[in-house]
Amino acid sequence: MRVDGRTADELRPVKMERGFAKFAEGSCFITMGDTHMLVTATVEDRVPPFMKNTGKGWLTAEYNMLPRSGRERNQRPDNRGPNGRSMEIQRLIGRCLRTIVDLDSMGERTIIVDCDAIRADGGTRTASITAAYVAVHDAVTWMKKKGMIKKDLLGEPVAAVSLGVVNGQELLDLCYEEDSKAQTDMNVVMTESGKFIEIQGTAEAKPFTAEELGRMLGLAKKGIGELIGMQRSTLGI
Amino acid sequence: MRVDGRTADELRPVKMERGFAKFAEGSCFITMGDTHMLVTATVEDRVPPFMKNTGKGWLTAEYNMLPRSGRERNQRPDNRGPNGRSMEIQRLIGRCLRTIVDLDSMGERTIIVDCDAIRADGGTRTASITAAYVAVHDAVTWMKKKGMIKKDLLGEPVAAVSLGVVNGQELLDLCYEEDSKAQTDMNVVMTESGKFIEIQGTAEAKPFTAEELGRMLGLAKKGIGELIGMQRSTLGI
Amino acid sequence: MRVDGRTADELRPVKMERGFAKFAEGSCFITMGDTHMLVTATVEDRVPPFMKNTGKGWLTAEYNMLPRSGRERNQRPDNRGPNGRSMEIQRLIGRCLRTIVDLDSMGERTIIVDCDAIRADGGTRTASITAAYVAVHDAVTWMKKKGMIKKDLLGEPVAAVSLGVVNGQELLDLCYEEDSKAQTDMNVVMTESGKFIEIQGTAEAKPFTAEELGRMLGLAKKGIGELIGMQRSTLGI
Amino acid sequence: MRVDGRTADELRPVKMERGFAKFAEGSCFITMGDTHMLVTATVEDRVPPFMKNTGKGWLTAEYNMLPRSGRERNQRPDNRGPNGRSMEIQRLIGRCLRTIVDLDSMGERTIIVDCDAIRADGGTRTASITAAYVAVHDAVTWMKKKGMIKKDLLGEPVAAVSLGVVNGQELLDLCYEEDSKAQTDMNVVMTESGKFIEIQGTAEAKPFTAEELGRMLGLAKKGIGELIGMQRSTLGI
Amino acid sequence: MRVDGRTADELRPVKMERGFAKFAEGSCFITMGDTHMLVTATVEDRVPPFMKNTGKGWLTAEYNMLPRSGRERNQRPDNRGPNGRSMEIQRLIGRCLRTIVDLDSMGERTIIVDCDAIRADGGTRTASITAAYVAVHDAVTWMKKKGMIKKDLLGEPVAAVSLGVVNGQELLDLCYEEDSKAQTDMNVVMTESGKFIEIQGTAEAKPFTAEELGRMLGLAKKGIGELIGMQRSTLGI
Amino acid sequence: MRVDGRTADELRPVKMERGFAKFAEGSCFITMGDTHMLVTATVEDRVPPFMKNTGKGWLTAEYNMLPRSGRERNQRPDNRGPNGRSMEIQRLIGRCLRTIVDLDSMGERTIIVDCDAIRADGGTRTASITAAYVAVHDAVTWMKKKGMIKKDLLGEPVAAVSLGVVNGQELLDLCYEEDSKAQTDMNVVMTESGKFIEIQGTAEAKPFTAEELGRMLGLAKKGIGELIGMQRSTLGI
Repeated sequence: MRVDGRTADELRPVKMERGFAKFAEGSCFITMGDTHMLVTATVEDRVPPFMKNTGKGWLTAEYNMLPRSGRERNQRPDNRGPNGRSMEIQRLIGRCLRTIVDLDSMGERTIIVDCDAIRADGGTRTASITAAYVAVHDAVTWMKKKGMIKKDLLGEPVAAVSLGVVNGQELLDLCYEEDSKAQTDMNVVMTESGKFIEIQGTAEAKPFTAEELGRMLGLAKKGIGELIGMQRSTLGI
Repeated sequence: MRVDGRTADELRPVKMERGFAKFAEGSCFITMGDTHMLVTATVEDRVPPFMKNTGKGWLTAEYNMLPRSGRERNQRPDNRGPNGRSMEIQRLIGRCLRTIVDLDSMGERTIIVDCDAIRADGGTRTASITAAYVAVHDAVTWMKKKGMIKKDLLGEPVAAVSLGVVNGQELLDLCYEEDSKAQTDMNVVMTESGKFIEIQGTAEAKPFTAEELGRMLGLAKKGIGELIGMQRSTLGI
Repeated sequence: MRVDGRTADELRPVKMERGFAKFAEGSCFITMGDTHMLVTATVEDRVPPFMKNTGKGWLTAEYNMLPRSGRERNQRPDNRGPNGRSMEIQRLIGRCLRTIVDLDSMGERTIIVDCDAIRADGGTRTASITAAYVAVHDAVTWMKKKGMIKKDLLGEPVAAVSLGVVNGQELLDLCYEEDSKAQTDMNVVMTESGKFIEIQGTAEAKPFTAEELGRMLGLAKKGIGELIGMQRSTLGI
Repeated sequence: MRVDGRTADELRPVKMERGFAKFAEGSCFITMGDTHMLVTATVEDRVPPFMKNTGKGWLTAEYNMLPRSGRERNQRPDNRGPNGRSMEIQRLIGRCLRTIVDLDSMGERTIIVDCDAIRADGGTRTASITAAYVAVHDAVTWMKKKGMIKKDLLGEPVAAVSLGVVNGQELLDLCYEEDSKAQTDMNVVMTESGKFIEIQGTAEAKPFTAEELGRMLGLAKKGIGELIGMQRSTLGI
Repeated sequence: MRVDGRTADELRPVKMERGFAKFAEGSCFITMGDTHMLVTATVEDRVPPFMKNTGKGWLTAEYNMLPRSGRERNQRPDNRGPNGRSMEIQRLIGRCLRTIVDLDSMGERTIIVDCDAIRADGGTRTASITAAYVAVHDAVTWMKKKGMIKKDLLGEPVAAVSLGVVNGQELLDLCYEEDSKAQTDMNVVMTESGKFIEIQGTAEAKPFTAEELGRMLGLAKKGIGELIGMQRSTLGI
Repeated sequence: MRVDGRTADELRPVKMERGFAKFAEGSCFITMGDTHMLVTATVEDRVPPFMKNTGKGWLTAEYNMLPRSGRERNQRPDNRGPNGRSMEIQRLIGRCLRTIVDLDSMGERTIIVDCDAIRADGGTRTASITAAYVAVHDAVTWMKKKGMIKKDLLGEPVAAVSLGVVNGQELLDLCYEEDSKAQTDMNVVMTESGKFIEIQGTAEAKPFTAEELGRMLGLAKKGIGELIGMQRSTLGI
């Protein structure tokens, strides 16, 4: 029995609100328990310097937590830009979405995915990726309507979950309290057909075994399947 | 007739949601038409260096807009910290609230007021001040419950509105479209008893006369009276 | 009787030295009692990115205090650029001057107004604006002589003063000692014909009333009239 | 047959030179083919603010590439500190080593692991971890000799390798040329007894399957076993 | 015959105005032709971290040019702090003055020497050093009057001049126009008794010979002798 | 007798390893006792903004010390870029080499000289200059082979040494221990024909005399002659 009464393989209650950001080309407000992420997708008519004159597009992500999204107030990014954790997270989000967007066919444009934590209770980076699929989907639809692109740019749906070993037991979708005492932390990003986009497993308190890894990957597959179902029903696809 | 059908002395539809930020000591999510501000009040057990060993408290504010709160995406604060406009706004918010909080009686603590624009359609700074009164009120109540303070710290309620001269007509509570073509921009912060905390009037296109100033101050009084009524009903005081 | 023997509606002794900066296109060294500002106007043949290809010009201001201009040494701007107060001041100066310069007719050029406090004893921002009118006037004359512009760019003269309520009495042109104990602080920027470019009134210790506001605006009008007289005699116009 | 003639499960030629940095408490210069890393371990008598008064120690890592370590010159870290990639890498290195050092028994001290790429041809982060085990080992020995600690602080040896899928084939220890065309990139950090400290697998060109993951983990085990053998012989343990 | 009619061994017209900065502990406004430097000396009751608990004092210098001190407007120090040239100059000024101040006998205090160019026409760094002797002298006198120190802290007077080889001729005290076409640039800082505090000679266009060096050192001695005479008469010592 | 047994006019053991950096256009790893510098020369096909459209080339230098090159760990450059000392050094290195490279004949290209201290025991800046001559020589040869330039760009060889007065005795090539107790510090950069590129002499503890200066310049000539001999034999010229 988990701290919030869930079984080991159970997601927190999930909701996705499409189009939450009135002015953005695509957006999704996702809640997974007390983790609330606002994810927007913006289309801009330019690419970063290293992509200029390639005829191809780019996708990048930025991640931040509002100062009072968590139990303690955290400072706003200081004069060095995002901190190490935020930078790691936004690099992960950008990398994963670039894998499923056909950048070669979108012209010299950039999709910027902004992920802002309104409330944070564990799993903000995986919730960001899951919501980003919805937001980017709508931004791509917007581009099609505007005649900017001719073919669809998105591959099969992608979602992400966190996992962990807590008190010797593998758990799906950790809340903050579980996360803070996990021996192993893991994040898995997977496509609908069960292929990996990214896996990151980190021993916190002690090294983990191949068997534990196997069981966490099993939980990931179940959770991601459910999330992709919700993405499909949110998007009506 | 205004762009959104209001009369010259009419506020946009206003809602205040108290306690929106689950983890903060006080918070208020205010919507005024398409301007949505999340304002939280955090209590920290320390003061900035210049207040150390004075036995007194401090209040400070930070203001930011989410990248996609507006029609165009705006960049996150860069390595120079908040831009000039944000700094000006957060200095205004902090200054106004310090005037009505009894800092001498709160011990060496700081109240940090975070104002984040989730959606922005004009008047974010004045909406921040109006919501901040509610958030700070609840943070003070929290301090009283915790036994940190003995007496109430708050003076009479305070609220703020924007005003402007548009096409030669004085208007209350400008939305973005009106603001962008105003000849004069004005912000007024006022107490319930009708005294000024701050007035800022700026000629945009051409200088303004004493008569125009007088009419804008009249509109301000009306709007602020209505907002303070809503603060009272939100707080049940 | 004020700390320096003046009456409530009396300016400090004022001097304006035109052309103090040998190499600048326009400059004015203004002293108002122990407040000494060096203001220069530079003409550059380029505009900021957001004005490119508009065919119009721009005017911007920078403000700084020399480290030992005041009673305590203040640090030079650190790696975050000008501090909040300086940024607020330079934004004010730039805004006011842009209102009276015909930017549409000056071509894609920028006038940079640099305001540096050599000695500071209160009212540096208002002294900057008053001196800036003289410096910009000469920079515009320089442009005309060089054939860069065909028509005059300047509207009617503009000057600024500070005001305050000290011990319940409204005073004109506060020195530092008065300013540090004022209940209300005010800055007014006005044209020769008595119209407002900017008013900023701030309650420091307690809110101010409409009557106090009215009396301060009256003092402002008197002081600004005298300053504009001195601008005219300095410029010989 | 690989670009440099190796078989799929073969490491590049590896050398470890212990004590390369004359002044450091521990150091190791590792070469794996054309990847040359200088890794030093420094012991400082203080801990970061968040560890103060805990009685425990800390370990942190910094990573950088010399400007001309690679084929193209890369700029030195600019005024935002290390770039996103470097920050990600140094966070990984620190995290892995903290797992195997008994921080609770080292007193309020910090071990700083500096990893500087002298020549870079792929796999610098994994080479850093492998060399860091040797450098930290010697720093711990130094602490013991100085009487700073009573018991050994190090768990079982740890090493790291990179892996990838290139042209549909899983490969061990990718050089730069292989890395740049890999469909999947992977880094594995493992203990001598075959448990995981960290696994990171990233789809570059297309998602990877559970079978590919399994084969890469097999290669990792082989390579890491060989590297730990070399660590042991270098350290004479 | 030089561009301004001087002979090769002639200083520009020099004036020193002691106490120019009303609020500073010591100050000197020096003009050497069109080079005008405002130099202040501030006494602070603290030392930098590396001097704490040594019982000794410190002296440091900061150097800056007002944006419009020169023919072209130069930007204010950006978010990286002073530029390389300014940093080099302020390090030189601090170093030279530390050599002649008895830091061991001044208690844990810091003298900050601020050198700001109001007008710049070559030789600002050497003019700064010459004026700094006067400003520091008065700051030391101030400390003595306040009872902070018991004995005098200053050694023999020190002054500085620039020199150069222009068109094959050695010249004393170069103005900007001469400096910009010099083959060799030199700065010499010397005591009244003719000993060197610092010499810096730089080949600009072509290497210089021992003979040229000798002749420049001769000119330096003459010029510095005259400047020290003026320091003495300014200070009445 | 010196701390390491040398005579007053004796260099430390010197070695130069040409081509140490496999990927750079030119490089030299120099060791002078326990001072080890890796110096690389990179050729880039662009010039800084102030050189654009001049048809001429540029040469710039960067200098840094690895964190554990010295007895104490020093921090990596922070968010203000290189510190004052590093900036001073890299400006010196760049300036000296620009004097001997024919920038007018190299096209709009930049040679970047990177000097990184692997081990630091005094005299890193002078060792950098000596090694830079070798690295730049090979970069120029590379340019000639590539057909980028038609004529040789390098003047006569240049090398540098440090000198000092320690316990009243002039010494050549100070090691760190000597340097830290020197009364006078000096750096001399000289051509093969005995002309000066740069001399910098600084009184540390007490002013130095013309006689001491003369003796140090004599030692410099001897040391630099030997170093240029080694450059010639390293380069085979």
